[in-house]
Amino acid sequence: MARGTGTPVEMPRVRRAVFLVQNGMRRMREGPGTAEGLQHALQRRPGNMKKGDVMVPGIIGGIGPESTIDYYRLLIARFRERTGGADYPPVLVNSIDMTAMLALVAAGNLDALAAYLAAETDRLNAAGADFVVMASNTPHIVFDEVRRRARVPMLSIVEETAGHALSQGYTKLGLFGTRFTMQGGFYQAAFEEAGIAIVTPSAEEQEFIHEKYMGEFVKGIFRDEVKSALVATAGRMRADSGIEGLILGGTELPLVLGPADLPGMGVLNTTAIHVEAMIDRMLSHNA
Amino acid sequence: MARGTGTPVEMPRVRRAVFLVQNGMRRMREGPGTAEGLQHALQRRPGNMKKGDVMVPGIIGGIGPESTIDYYRLLIARFRERTGGADYPPVLVNSIDMTAMLALVAAGNLDALAAYLAAETDRLNAAGADFVVMASNTPHIVFDEVRRRARVPMLSIVEETAGHALSQGYTKLGLFGTRFTMQGGFYQAAFEEAGIAIVTPSAEEQEFIHEKYMGEFVKGIFRDEVKSALVATAGRMRADSGIEGLILGGTELPLVLGPADLPGMGVLNTTAIHVEAMIDRMLSHNA
Repeated sequence: MARGTGTPVEMPRVRRAVFLVQNGMRRMREGPGTAEGLQHALQRRPGNMKKGDVMVPGIIGGIGPESTIDYYRLLIARFRERTGGADYPPVLVNSIDMTAMLALVAAGNLDALAAYLAAETDRLNAAGADFVVMASNTPHIVFDEVRRRARVPMLSIVEETAGHALSQGYTKLGLFGTRFTMQGGFYQAAFEEAGIAIVTPSAEEQEFIHEKYMGEFVKGIFRDEVKSALVATAGRMRADSGIEGLILGGTELPLVLGPADLPGMGVLNTTAIHVEAMIDRMLSHNA
Repeated sequence: MARGTGTPVEMPRVRRAVFLVQNGMRRMREGPGTAEGLQHALQRRPGNMKKGDVMVPGIIGGIGPESTIDYYRLLIARFRERTGGADYPPVLVNSIDMTAMLALVAAGNLDALAAYLAAETDRLNAAGADFVVMASNTPHIVFDEVRRRARVPMLSIVEETAGHALSQGYTKLGLFGTRFTMQGGFYQAAFEEAGIAIVTPSAEEQEFIHEKYMGEFVKGIFRDEVKSALVATAGRMRADSGIEGLILGGTELPLVLGPADLPGMGVLNTTAIHVEAMIDRMLSHNA
């Protein structure tokens, strides 16, 4: 930070450093730097936010880890782009045990799943998160119940994607994800409410996507031949059902498939849509 | 998870799923799934841990984000390797504003820096972290003061690296890092206590490393020509001072330099050493 502090051309750098120190000091006086400040930060709620405050997002992550990294990296990059790049955003991540969570989903223990996820939102709430997201589509099968139990506002990846799809004028979209996401009905419900039809792959295609999802994607394995099969399925759905675009309804899917793989078709990256909604919320007191 | 549930060869998978669900249910009864369970989890402290409990690590991250991702990925991979790969570890990450933190370091406001970091440990403590690490060497300039203020045990990257170096029999090691780390004296103090001499680069070399660190590494920029310069500096230090190895005393450095770049020289990856110490602590009630 002290580089070239003697040269006039570097002065903005120095001024910025001074600003940041003062800003840091202010944060410490008013913010997390004192017992009172932390108490304030931890008790701070949307109702008593001040103009300019950045709301702190909490992320329930680890489902799986690679997509959590994708969220984290994208959130930081987009926050910096949208705010001019001086500061890094505050982010709280609670990375949970994906294996235990998926076992509950697979066993259909949805009450237990909702209780588990709600308790994990409580941890983030205790740490001072102003709102919480689940960085994965699959657990949104119990989103309504988790939101009902949570002590902190939550942003749904499904609702945000439906809102985005509506704003883009889509009327019929394909859906890829885990079996739980394709068959769970929660995407269908949210999109039906928005007047958008959801088309899922055939039973055989769903089985293939689910197997690759659980066996490879969540482990960070992304192979070209699997990508080709996914592209072929999307093409078949467009030919047979006239889908205008494809919802990548699993936060690992953008790590496999992108717009370049699906020319002429809309691609809805649910991670990117969710992250943009998070930053909107983080900056909602900046106006 | 339901793949091939009808075929005998897949039975271990089913049994594991059943175990995991039961395990998940147990965790929910005793753990974070009920208000009482969360209260217990949040109040749980090393003193009342039960055998088999995994201690929850808290990471102060974002300094910088790429090294936080390195910690997160390595922690998950090594935890799974060391425990047999069934479960994913619980991890809490509090990603802070690197710019504000570095401004405090650069301005020498060490009291304010310690207060800031201690308050950020409080967030992790409130979320139920059993111990906390700072995922960066530079803020260890105030580690002792942060540990004194923190309400939760902390693991120092410097102390763990000194312990590791001692166990490996080193007597003289080179140190790369930010200017604050190379000149702050905290590495020298910890290693002197362990009877190991620390050699730092020349003033000019330090300036180069610091500039590349702040201008490139923390932004995720890693260039071959910078790597070559670092390798040359390490070679010069070995020739002139007889260092037996090099401490990568900045958590971005392992993203630039590895053992393959420094043949015949010990390479101490402080991130990897810190992560191994974290897992030791996480599993300390498993014996």
